[in-house]
Amino acid sequence: MTSPIIGWDIGGANIKAARIEQGLPSPTMFECALPLWRDLHRLPAVLSEAVEALGHTRTMAVTMTAELADCFANKREGVAGVLDAFGHAFPDVEPWVYGTDGVFRSAAAARRQPYRVAAANWMASATLVSKTVPDALFLDVGSTTTDIIPIVGGQVLAKGKTDPARLRSGELVYTGLLRTPVAAIVRRVPVRGRRVRVAAEYFAASADVHLWLRRIDEGEYTCETPDGRGRSRAEVGARLARMICADSDRIGAAGVTEIAEYVAHAQVRQIVSGLRQVMRRLGAQSPGLVVVAGQGAFLAREAAAEVGLTIIDLAERMGAGAARATPAAAVAYLLDAMIESRDPRLEVHEPQLNLAP
Amino acid sequence: MTSPIIGWDIGGANIKAARIEQGLPSPTMFECALPLWRDLHRLPAVLSEAVEALGHTRTMAVTMTAELADCFANKREGVAGVLDAFGHAFPDVEPWVYGTDGVFRSAAAARRQPYRVAAANWMASATLVSKTVPDALFLDVGSTTTDIIPIVGGQVLAKGKTDPARLRSGELVYTGLLRTPVAAIVRRVPVRGRRVRVAAEYFAASADVHLWLRRIDEGEYTCETPDGRGRSRAEVGARLARMICADSDRIGAAGVTEIAEYVAHAQVRQIVSGLRQVMRRLGAQSPGLVVVAGQGAFLAREAAAEVGLTIIDLAERMGAGAARATPAAAVAYLLDAMIESRDPRLEVHEPQLNLAP
Repeated sequence: MTSPIIGWDIGGANIKAARIEQGLPSPTMFECALPLWRDLHRLPAVLSEAVEALGHTRTMAVTMTAELADCFANKREGVAGVLDAFGHAFPDVEPWVYGTDGVFRSAAAARRQPYRVAAANWMASATLVSKTVPDALFLDVGSTTTDIIPIVGGQVLAKGKTDPARLRSGELVYTGLLRTPVAAIVRRVPVRGRRVRVAAEYFAASADVHLWLRRIDEGEYTCETPDGRGRSRAEVGARLARMICADSDRIGAAGVTEIAEYVAHAQVRQIVSGLRQVMRRLGAQSPGLVVVAGQGAFLAREAAAEVGLTIIDLAERMGAGAARATPAAAVAYLLDAMIESRDPRLEVHEPQLNLAP
Repeated sequence: MTSPIIGWDIGGANIKAARIEQGLPSPTMFECALPLWRDLHRLPAVLSEAVEALGHTRTMAVTMTAELADCFANKREGVAGVLDAFGHAFPDVEPWVYGTDGVFRSAAAARRQPYRVAAANWMASATLVSKTVPDALFLDVGSTTTDIIPIVGGQVLAKGKTDPARLRSGELVYTGLLRTPVAAIVRRVPVRGRRVRVAAEYFAASADVHLWLRRIDEGEYTCETPDGRGRSRAEVGARLARMICADSDRIGAAGVTEIAEYVAHAQVRQIVSGLRQVMRRLGAQSPGLVVVAGQGAFLAREAAAEVGLTIIDLAERMGAGAARATPAAAVAYLLDAMIESRDPRLEVHEPQLNLAP
């Protein structure tokens, strides 16, 4: 490694960064919740904050999904907006932007081909995993979405390259540990065994479900709460009860638990549905292994167990921090490998590019 | 009628008022979108604005659903918060608060019995309708929710009296013309005939669906847009395309229409599901008539036609404005009738009550 590298995963709700350098066995991580659709103007400051925490370097690799955030009219504007923030935060850096074709582009080239670099983070993670686990499903349950990427014979065999295509193929399931509105997971919940329709409001999120069930703690509830209130059990219970327009003291803790358990299992079923769709397509090629990652790795494990796959935990291979935010670490490692090997997929379009500090 | 009466329907997203007075055949209406969960502090000003528009009176009837808004920790706090706003806006008025038991209470009594007066607006509408249509299903599709209330032999035969009980009985279906998140209506949408999962985000609302399909116009899109952008076809199309993480120019107008038509029909199916559940419970008693009302009356008509009911349009009986905001008009008429007949269900708890101006 000629110089340290910071890998970035710029999401619509979270900024994640991983710094790798010679001699350190696992990346140093930075994570910060940032609701970009509302606070886009804060992005340069958060980028600078990350670099202050991690230590500066002029070699940066970027992947993003933030271009989908509805502060941008479309993906072209979104890709440009994210790269503008990099330009403001780090005028001395030419970041390398990763694409779904495995190519790192200059910022200028990325702006010209926004559909190549939009939502390529899953490809970075799966490509990295494919180097050590040649046959597996890569299953990454994040705060907001779930990726299910087949790796067969050392190759990433994704059927969909864009988010719409991935939503169709089952490789992207829009459910996650924290930010998923309960009303987007279930239509009804049981209350003393009777099915009750839920309110079509953002009253409660999956973070409330998993906090109530003690699968995450208050510190892991990193997104904003739906009602702007706190993360105590009373406040979480009130949000979950409100999904059936009830006060939590009217349905009691047992009533809240009944709702939470049902919603949590419905999320696992959503992931299982994606897994089965991907496995069906692969047929006899379908791997018997699954590599689980992401903040919601426990949901990934439950889903994988339900379909009878053998589980490899990425946290045991990369360290817990990097496995929580795999794409950020992955783009750093991939860029490093390409620089070392002078890989032609480093598309040097701009003469002023600086690979070394 | 001894004096004019203003009836109020205080919702979590909309404030509606109806003024009735001697000699006028139909109520004068006021409507204003107000996202209470964010702008609770504006409620007194909006109440005053309504009275400036309609003309003051000291006789007011109130029904509410705003107590459910998550700016309130629970319904007791919600009922009190709404009544506080009335106190600030109209210190000279003692409003009458309608309950699901058909009783009008003083504000002080309503604060003591919040579960009686919470979400009683459907009872006001159905009671008023029952006076002229003794056997019918009252089907009110509002901006946010749908009420399906059976009226049999002149009696309101609701199985559920609270919102949770009504969500269970099918008498409350949480779907509406404007505010319903698309992700709370459908799990998948067709794109060129292939089913694609949707993003679990508040990217688009039912208002976008119906505007795109030209069933409402920009002026009728009275709630805020999910992304804070405008209501042009380009902006609406972008929001709907974003539900599958696509840019609208990538799927084209035909692609957006395919999504919108599917979601619109899914909403009709949600209403049909509630209708069938209510009709099944009533069995042989189930009326063959349906009285449709609300801003989404066209959705009500589609659903009613699908189950083979004969349709009566409340707008033809009460005027279009009152039929759009039936509960506000209904509490005014019901209070008037009770005052005229010195009905014992006017619970005069407070000595200082003033019925006349």
